[in-house]
Amino acid sequence: MMGTEQSRALVRRYFDSLTARDWDTFAAVLADDVVYEMPQSRERITGKERYVRFNQEYPGEWELALTRLVADGATAAASISFVMDGEHQVGLAFFELADGLVAQVTDFWPEPNEPPPGREHLVERLPGRLDHFGPGR
Amino acid sequence: MMGTEQSRALVRRYFDSLTARDWDTFAAVLADDVVYEMPQSRERITGKERYVRFNQEYPGEWELALTRLVADGATAAASISFVMDGEHQVGLAFFELADGLVAQVTDFWPEPNEPPPGREHLVERLPGRLDHFGPGR
Repeated sequence: MMGTEQSRALVRRYFDSLTARDWDTFAAVLADDVVYEMPQSRERITGKERYVRFNQEYPGEWELALTRLVADGATAAASISFVMDGEHQVGLAFFELADGLVAQVTDFWPEPNEPPPGREHLVERLPGRLDHFGPGR
Repeated sequence: MMGTEQSRALVRRYFDSLTARDWDTFAAVLADDVVYEMPQSRERITGKERYVRFNQEYPGEWELALTRLVADGATAAASISFVMDGEHQVGLAFFELADGLVAQVTDFWPEPNEPPPGREHLVERLPGRLDHFGPGR
């Protein structure tokens, strides 16, 4: 059974090693049968080897920064600020953790959009980029 | 200072009262100066009265079900399955909680997309709808 502090440290190590392209450390935080899912494109990657390779082969110049981290027993959620070829994106991930390792990651990549009409009387529009939330805790 | 169990119960009450259109209970979980943000459209709603009204006026026939809930001290993250006029969507929310009330909600609504070419050798495509994750904990 994983505790919240252990989960928090594990997810930090996941993102720190990914940011550093430290593939040995990244592989070491993953369960052998890790499952990575991107529900928006209905894609699934199964197994440590493929998932490390997916990240190694990821095209473009990218940097990421953790902006939120919520850990709760053997689950966690995070948001990241992701800059790809100069374009800012937000990534949202839910984690399932087991035996000190990352067992499942579910990743979402919401995109900018325009609000539907009819709620202007309640809403203000913010300047700037998607998700202005600052560096993570 | 809010504890994890209190936060978890508060976020459940937030979604339960929203699902039930129980506006009195919904208003009672919100701080007077609650801030609701949708970073994708750079929209912000400030204050309990406006935010309750936003939900009361939300157009269309909708149902929601909580699918994930991660609580961590005075923060939480959740995913919901949202069906609007027969169409399934996934909503993702991060919460800031204070004094037993919801102080901030940041909502994301990722949309289905097609994967870029070049990773077919690592990925399987799943049938079915966006985010097949089941009912929440």
